[in-house]
Amino acid sequence: MNTLNYTAAMPSRSHQLALIFIAVMTLLTIGNTVAQSKNQVVRIAHLRIDSVLLEKYRVELQEEIETSMRVEPGVLTLYAVEEKKRPGYITVFEIYANDAAYQAHVQSPHFKKYKNSTKDMVKSLELIETTPIALEAKPRK
Amino acid sequence: MNTLNYTAAMPSRSHQLALIFIAVMTLLTIGNTVAQSKNQVVRIAHLRIDSVLLEKYRVELQEEIETSMRVEPGVLTLYAVEEKKRPGYITVFEIYANDAAYQAHVQSPHFKKYKNSTKDMVKSLELIETTPIALEAKPRK
Repeated sequence: MNTLNYTAAMPSRSHQLALIFIAVMTLLTIGNTVAQSKNQVVRIAHLRIDSVLLEKYRVELQEEIETSMRVEPGVLTLYAVEEKKRPGYITVFEIYANDAAYQAHVQSPHFKKYKNSTKDMVKSLELIETTPIALEAKPRK
Repeated sequence: MNTLNYTAAMPSRSHQLALIFIAVMTLLTIGNTVAQSKNQVVRIAHLRIDSVLLEKYRVELQEEIETSMRVEPGVLTLYAVEEKKRPGYITVFEIYANDAAYQAHVQSPHFKKYKNSTKDMVKSLELIETTPIALEAKPRK
């Protein structure tokens, strides 16, 4: 009886090793995820578009976003929206995996093509560097 | 030989039915996804927070976002960021599945708690209704 109680209270050496292994792996995974998030570049772009060229601009932006997301693994999020009350006032919410991914994006042929083909459409552009407070999203269907 | 060629060029009746079934299901799926996206409510909130209460505010906002994402299926995205050059200037990018999900969110106990506990921290709040141009995000790790 005593032996049984002792066994129940004190896990075997192999159990202890297994628990330590699980704890270490959990901490490594959490640490790695936090480190990945900390490297992320999160930016907001505010654009004002020439109303005469607005429809063309939307198509160019959609194409640039579609290509970036498809061919660049480090481009994580591109959300482009237009104000309902002020057509032509556009916000792009951008997340890149890290600074290297962001630099690669602005040097990519599709981004350069977008910049060139829209240069007469964009009346103003403001880029805002940000620090995330919370970035939560459900998996998209 | 002729029979073989004929068979290759003209699929059997069961093949035809299978192809029609696949085509119809594909169109239904695309239509459903487009309809779901069209109902989404996409909003931007711009907030300016009292600098003395900024640290407390960040914690309140993180808690509100964490709870909303966990308990509300219709809250799809909540991205809260703070400008690097202007601490206290906060943008929240919000996506709800539809207007009912948005209405349920602002009536939820956790949102009301957040509104009440932060009412003296928020110096200004601007809500912007938007129309999406492109909303693309990779699955989060």
